[in-house]
Amino acid sequence: MSASTTQLEQYNTKREELIKSDRALRRDHEVASLSAVEIEADQIIRKIRAEEANSIWNLDYPSIPHPFPGMEFLTGREIIVKTKLFKILTKMPKGGLLHAHLDGTVNVSVLLRLALKHRAIHVRTPESLTTQNIKTVLPQFCALPEKEFSKNALGLTETTYQPDSWVPIQVAREQFHPELGGPEGFDRWVTKALTIDPSEAYGTHNTSTKIWLKFGSTFLVGGGLVRYAPIIEEYIKEFFLTSIEDGISYVEPRINFMYKDIIAADGTPVPQRELVAIFDRVIAEVKEEMKQRGREGEFIGARIIYSTVRFCTNEELEWYLNDCIALKKEFPHLIAGFDLVGHEDALHPLIYYAESLLRFPQMQKEAGVDIPFIFHAGETLGDGTVADMNLYDAILMGTKRIGHGFSLVKHPKLMEICKERDIAVEVCPISNEILRLTSSMCTHPLPVLLNNGIHVALCSDDPSVFGNMGLTFDYFQVLAASELTGLIQLGEMAKDSIKYSTLETSAKEEALELWQRQWQKFVEYVVEAGRSGSV
Amino acid sequence: MSASTTQLEQYNTKREELIKSDRALRRDHEVASLSAVEIEADQIIRKIRAEEANSIWNLDYPSIPHPFPGMEFLTGREIIVKTKLFKILTKMPKGGLLHAHLDGTVNVSVLLRLALKHRAIHVRTPESLTTQNIKTVLPQFCALPEKEFSKNALGLTETTYQPDSWVPIQVAREQFHPELGGPEGFDRWVTKALTIDPSEAYGTHNTSTKIWLKFGSTFLVGGGLVRYAPIIEEYIKEFFLTSIEDGISYVEPRINFMYKDIIAADGTPVPQRELVAIFDRVIAEVKEEMKQRGREGEFIGARIIYSTVRFCTNEELEWYLNDCIALKKEFPHLIAGFDLVGHEDALHPLIYYAESLLRFPQMQKEAGVDIPFIFHAGETLGDGTVADMNLYDAILMGTKRIGHGFSLVKHPKLMEICKERDIAVEVCPISNEILRLTSSMCTHPLPVLLNNGIHVALCSDDPSVFGNMGLTFDYFQVLAASELTGLIQLGEMAKDSIKYSTLETSAKEEALELWQRQWQKFVEYVVEAGRSGSV
Repeated sequence: MSASTTQLEQYNTKREELIKSDRALRRDHEVASLSAVEIEADQIIRKIRAEEANSIWNLDYPSIPHPFPGMEFLTGREIIVKTKLFKILTKMPKGGLLHAHLDGTVNVSVLLRLALKHRAIHVRTPESLTTQNIKTVLPQFCALPEKEFSKNALGLTETTYQPDSWVPIQVAREQFHPELGGPEGFDRWVTKALTIDPSEAYGTHNTSTKIWLKFGSTFLVGGGLVRYAPIIEEYIKEFFLTSIEDGISYVEPRINFMYKDIIAADGTPVPQRELVAIFDRVIAEVKEEMKQRGREGEFIGARIIYSTVRFCTNEELEWYLNDCIALKKEFPHLIAGFDLVGHEDALHPLIYYAESLLRFPQMQKEAGVDIPFIFHAGETLGDGTVADMNLYDAILMGTKRIGHGFSLVKHPKLMEICKERDIAVEVCPISNEILRLTSSMCTHPLPVLLNNGIHVALCSDDPSVFGNMGLTFDYFQVLAASELTGLIQLGEMAKDSIKYSTLETSAKEEALELWQRQWQKFVEYVVEAGRSGSV
Repeated sequence: MSASTTQLEQYNTKREELIKSDRALRRDHEVASLSAVEIEADQIIRKIRAEEANSIWNLDYPSIPHPFPGMEFLTGREIIVKTKLFKILTKMPKGGLLHAHLDGTVNVSVLLRLALKHRAIHVRTPESLTTQNIKTVLPQFCALPEKEFSKNALGLTETTYQPDSWVPIQVAREQFHPELGGPEGFDRWVTKALTIDPSEAYGTHNTSTKIWLKFGSTFLVGGGLVRYAPIIEEYIKEFFLTSIEDGISYVEPRINFMYKDIIAADGTPVPQRELVAIFDRVIAEVKEEMKQRGREGEFIGARIIYSTVRFCTNEELEWYLNDCIALKKEFPHLIAGFDLVGHEDALHPLIYYAESLLRFPQMQKEAGVDIPFIFHAGETLGDGTVADMNLYDAILMGTKRIGHGFSLVKHPKLMEICKERDIAVEVCPISNEILRLTSSMCTHPLPVLLNNGIHVALCSDDPSVFGNMGLTFDYFQVLAASELTGLIQLGEMAKDSIKYSTLETSAKEEALELWQRQWQKFVEYVVEAGRSGSV
């Protein structure tokens, strides 16, 4: 053996050691013993990814000039759904969905269908719709009591339409002017108002500030529909059922309690505890349905993170904190946490609410309840801005998890604390990309978190607006854009989504056992499919 | 004082402590004592930045739909040059330029002017140029010996032009068909071949892979010009002089020795030691000129990082390593390091060359020289790819600095090692953005490096291709996109660009003293200008 060969061997040994120590912080590094079938499944997935990088992502598509794995989701979606990788991932057990805003979870076409079922739902616009203004005028929806139902209302597209007068949604749809596409044109108009399309995200609104304007408006439009109790009920059910179909066994949505009431079936406002009661009822219903279908284990349940918006005053916040405690007392099994939501770059920082928020633990103590903070923080490109600084406050106030934490990688001490105090981060890859915090998955900071050993749960945030229904799309984007990530790493994140949920210890253990059984079946399926080439 | 006020005060104290400990790793955290004038200058800069964020970046420009601070450089450049911030930064002493490829350092219009001065320079194309093909056909340049000069050559745009026949550059320019813009059309065509324009970076070539194809071609085109000794000499001088005008007092360019020879004034090849001799001569010349202008202290000098390209074989690499040692022996004061350059995602990784590279230290020892590795590594979006893994090898092989290190933030252990072993990173913000590793400065990982206490020297990489001549544009982009960064932080990076140069200890101390004097003048100017509103 020559001197230089020995030198090279020694070098390679040192190299292996260095790589190992660099990777030592990663959670998957701790995966004790992988089964042979897990190892094979992981290899199959990596092989398919490499093949498809060439066979699918390396082509030029007429409508997609620069495809690449991890590319802009709204443009790449139609390629993604054609891949074997995507098909396989749809079958993966995802564990829990820990970051999703309830009013952004159900496919817009379903919401529209639900809305059209209800005579109480009305729609209006500040001016009559024309080919000129249809791209900018937004619908406003509301559920009215029967005595206020509009009779003989003119359609929104009539020139004589009285601005801001309510029109029954079915009438508005049926009478939508043929020049504006007739009823289908109505559907397209509403859909566009409730979603973000690629021409907005990557064209007209291609900065974080601009796309948030559009993003915010989708919730204003949808709010008039999802505040109506009969719709909420079906909406929540649809959310649960589609989540289950995507392999999600537990959900912990944030519900925005800003409005303080919802609209009952008869069109009159009722306190929003009714919403929690509905939520409770739907859980039981879905559990029963799943049981009857012999798929009982596939749905563990759901809990609510009580949320209000960062534009409220400190006085209003006090009201919400008390309301949250009252709901927790009534529905102890449902209220799982408290959060303040909204555009961090534009709204009040957590420190603005410090005095009230610091009082919350004492208020809970007095009420005999326990409601952890689960704060959004660092959903920003800022480096030292007020929004970036929210991370300090979220952590100092004892947040259980961090929503987004996009700028967390800029804070070495906070990352250390997250590890010490076992604070997981709810990472929403597709949301971050569409809201222009990153231009593609390849530039997302997720690998920095993972390589530093931070626990991560992948989340969809607002799939009805972004089109990333379920969790498969987010898992896909993460897998596509990192060589280091394989099936094993996705599995770890799925497990963490259960471990870092607010489930009680015993429920958590049960959920993890269930997941493990589903995972076993899944990796067997991958190996089977890989061997037979049947994917 | 109420209980909750006390609680808030205690909270604020804890918050201050946490922020401090999170920022404790930053280099600027160590800045012992700032003078009153430094503090005021920093405040002025922050104030102007905040004002201009509103008055300049918050407007809509007809040709620039989404301006924001730190935006895509090629689109934002025309806004940048209008800002006060930019005007101030042009006057800042930048210290050393530690990462620039010599053949990408001089304004393309200057290079073209130099080329037109020399009768030996010829140009050819593989087909005659038409309005159809002018966007895709590239010029090839070469300096010919007199006996091969083309007489009676037809212009490149003549239909009867003989493909691949050499045309004197002046003839080609003068006879450029009016339909293609005449002589100015020729200049535009050559300029386009030597630069990247926004429609390429953000349109036709909007991925890292695609833009590298264009990027690589600019060097192939320019190579035929900058290999000609009479041009090289003026080119290097122009590089030094424009650097000095931008406040750069020392340069350490990488020179690509791949070709093994250059073309002498008479059009014949000579060994490329001649290039080093020219470099040496120009340093002396420029020093003398600066002395005569009474600006002696503004130019410390220049050294060379010997480079070849990552597509050579291991056998060829041996030749370059020996050549590098031979040049070091002849020009000990000039050869400062060794590097392998080129597109990391596409070419051989460092590990491919491990055997030869590991022998290099012994070879140096035998020759009695000392040539540190100063490797490019991690100039990639990869997470666990071969290009990303170059970081392990660069560090294990003892690199003195890391060129780019874009993916370094994904490697916690390597960041630790960089701190322990005092390895600085040569960060090239604008280069990274134009080569599509980041969509804007706001998503660049630089803050992660700085917040982790890694020493950083800002660099321009290939300003002739990117249009970021000097270092002011790169400093501007960094300042614009981070609240945490102010004048003090930029000053720290400038100081580090001297500290982490390959200058000998005494020369380094001298350079630092010089910089300190320049800095003092600069901050006084900022304060003066800020007070009088004269910027």
